[in-house]
Amino acid sequence: MTAHLPTLAIIGGTGALGNALARRWAGAGYPVVLGSRSKEKAEAFAGEISPKGGRPAPRGTDNATAAALGDIVVITVPFASHGAILEKIREAVTGKIVVDATVPLMPPKVGTVQLPAAGSAAGMTQQALGDRADVVSAFHNVAADKLKASGPVDCDVLVCGNKKAARQTVIALVEALGLRGLHAGPIANSAAAEALTSVLITINKHYSVSGAGVRITGELIAPDPGGA
Amino acid sequence: MTAHLPTLAIIGGTGALGNALARRWAGAGYPVVLGSRSKEKAEAFAGEISPKGGRPAPRGTDNATAAALGDIVVITVPFASHGAILEKIREAVTGKIVVDATVPLMPPKVGTVQLPAAGSAAGMTQQALGDRADVVSAFHNVAADKLKASGPVDCDVLVCGNKKAARQTVIALVEALGLRGLHAGPIANSAAAEALTSVLITINKHYSVSGAGVRITGELIAPDPGGA
Repeated sequence: MTAHLPTLAIIGGTGALGNALARRWAGAGYPVVLGSRSKEKAEAFAGEISPKGGRPAPRGTDNATAAALGDIVVITVPFASHGAILEKIREAVTGKIVVDATVPLMPPKVGTVQLPAAGSAAGMTQQALGDRADVVSAFHNVAADKLKASGPVDCDVLVCGNKKAARQTVIALVEALGLRGLHAGPIANSAAAEALTSVLITINKHYSVSGAGVRITGELIAPDPGGA
Repeated sequence: MTAHLPTLAIIGGTGALGNALARRWAGAGYPVVLGSRSKEKAEAFAGEISPKGGRPAPRGTDNATAAALGDIVVITVPFASHGAILEKIREAVTGKIVVDATVPLMPPKVGTVQLPAAGSAAGMTQQALGDRADVVSAFHNVAADKLKASGPVDCDVLVCGNKKAARQTVIALVEALGLRGLHAGPIANSAAAEALTSVLITINKHYSVSGAGVRITGELIAPDPGGA
């Protein structure tokens, strides 16, 4: 069964979120490729998160090579690097699902919502890649350190994208991490999840906590097969 | 003690959200004035929500008069009426807290986030009123029908505004409804709460539920007195 799991390329895989995602997915049996600006750094990080029990060992390489090797490409880079990364992986992601976790934080006021004029970072990604790839946004609100620990994470993942099948594929990846993923609408709706991160940063500071998360309440049982 | 509670003016008080807020606040002992385009309609609605036990009976009047009578003015109108309402209450809200619950939904695609160019409806309100009033946004994500029922509501209220004291005043009003209000940062952060409403509408549809809400997770105990 493991043989049928898609290879996941993590662009920015040596960052806190990318590394935490890679660790959990590798532990769930997914083949993982960590990408980084530095191939050597990616190799070192990949070695550190190798799972036990015969699961595939993660590999490390440069971002462009990682994007080429992945069946699904996950972007976890700071907003400042976002545009340059898209240029770098553009050709390699043709026909693939691109999972964008980018939060458009604008230092130093990271607790203040400052969405880009295009509406959302993920919307910019879909626009930049056009029909080349199906962009699905996710993971904006998950605290990397909670994900890095092996325990449960008290946070839902809002999954946005223009194609339902692509969202569903990403929801399966969210579930493999032990979290709940929710169909949250088209890529434009990523604005909500991206903006919410600044609210969570504000709440962490104001209430002196770390890792505040978000849960959607209500009896969300089975998706309506005919729903959007 | 009731004598010291501020009078709450609900602009759009015959709408679903405004009426539900008015009913709960009146039940908690607050003097409430319902505003509407139609004074007669406001009077009729006010009569229907009169609480028992000697608490002040709500009054109904036109929106401009309601704004003048309120110590705190709560805006619960559709986005299409938002600009016109601000013109109408502009003079009357001088020196007051204006609570804005406006969600910038753009029919027919109410499940798609379509934030205004200014970033958020509440930001537009603060800009329109300038130094005249302290705008605090709240109540975007609370389902009106859950609020109308007398039971608990499984939803937090994100409270945004540029002044902490004004946010704190509104948080007390949220608590009077039986809900938890959270300091969610400056008025720009209202974008997160406003956008989230379209996500909740999408989730209600996709998962065939009604009244999905949002909860912030984490050990949010006591506000840091020195925090923002």
